[in-house]
Amino acid sequence: MRIARTPRAVSAGVPAGDDAPRLRLRMRVMLGEAIAVGPGKIALLEALQRTHSINGAAKRLGMSYRRAWLLIDELNAALTEPAVRSATGGAHGGGSELTAVGEELVRLYRAIEQHAQQACADDIARLLGLLAR
Amino acid sequence: MRIARTPRAVSAGVPAGDDAPRLRLRMRVMLGEAIAVGPGKIALLEALQRTHSINGAAKRLGMSYRRAWLLIDELNAALTEPAVRSATGGAHGGGSELTAVGEELVRLYRAIEQHAQQACADDIARLLGLLAR
Repeated sequence: MRIARTPRAVSAGVPAGDDAPRLRLRMRVMLGEAIAVGPGKIALLEALQRTHSINGAAKRLGMSYRRAWLLIDELNAALTEPAVRSATGGAHGGGSELTAVGEELVRLYRAIEQHAQQACADDIARLLGLLAR
Repeated sequence: MRIARTPRAVSAGVPAGDDAPRLRLRMRVMLGEAIAVGPGKIALLEALQRTHSINGAAKRLGMSYRRAWLLIDELNAALTEPAVRSATGGAHGGGSELTAVGEELVRLYRAIEQHAQQACADDIARLLGLLAR
């Protein structure tokens, strides 16, 4: 979540220029010292929503298939039910899809980011106002 | 900001056990690709509020005096007015204090963290509910 100081950028979500201060908010769900859910895994699930394959999602994010597979495996193990379901069989082993839990995880994560931004908009603007232009 | 799943920990701010999933929310103010304000600098300002000296604050956070000084110098340069004022003179060069801008920066940063947590409490609880115990 990036919030620039100019009203235009805030209201329209337009990327700000490099010289405008902006707030970056990152959420992670911690299990002990391990990151169970974070921006990287959420981006991976979103890439899967578009590509319907671990290989396609990995390429989209510039990571190896192996790394993508390990992140999904780790995520699936941390949840009450897996976030990703992979079809088996066929020449290419079938595709991968988000389960209902996977969809809900992405939805909640992004909803919290957006809601936090909206709820704190006044204080965020004040804080960014302390930064020199 | 850490939010554990159990009502006890949420309401009382009690640290959760290592086995309970918790949400960690980290905010950074970015200037281009540089972090102008982040958790480290805010913790340093808070340590200064208590110790009234850069050396004391650095020790409290387990960092070198030089690193603390550099962080403060960087922060001061990024703001409309410096966050820290250091007295000169005397055998030990005087102490350091937060300016009004420094106090306001800490206050806003923590207020946003807390407000974001409160505003999103329901969705945060739902998200943490997707994690296996």
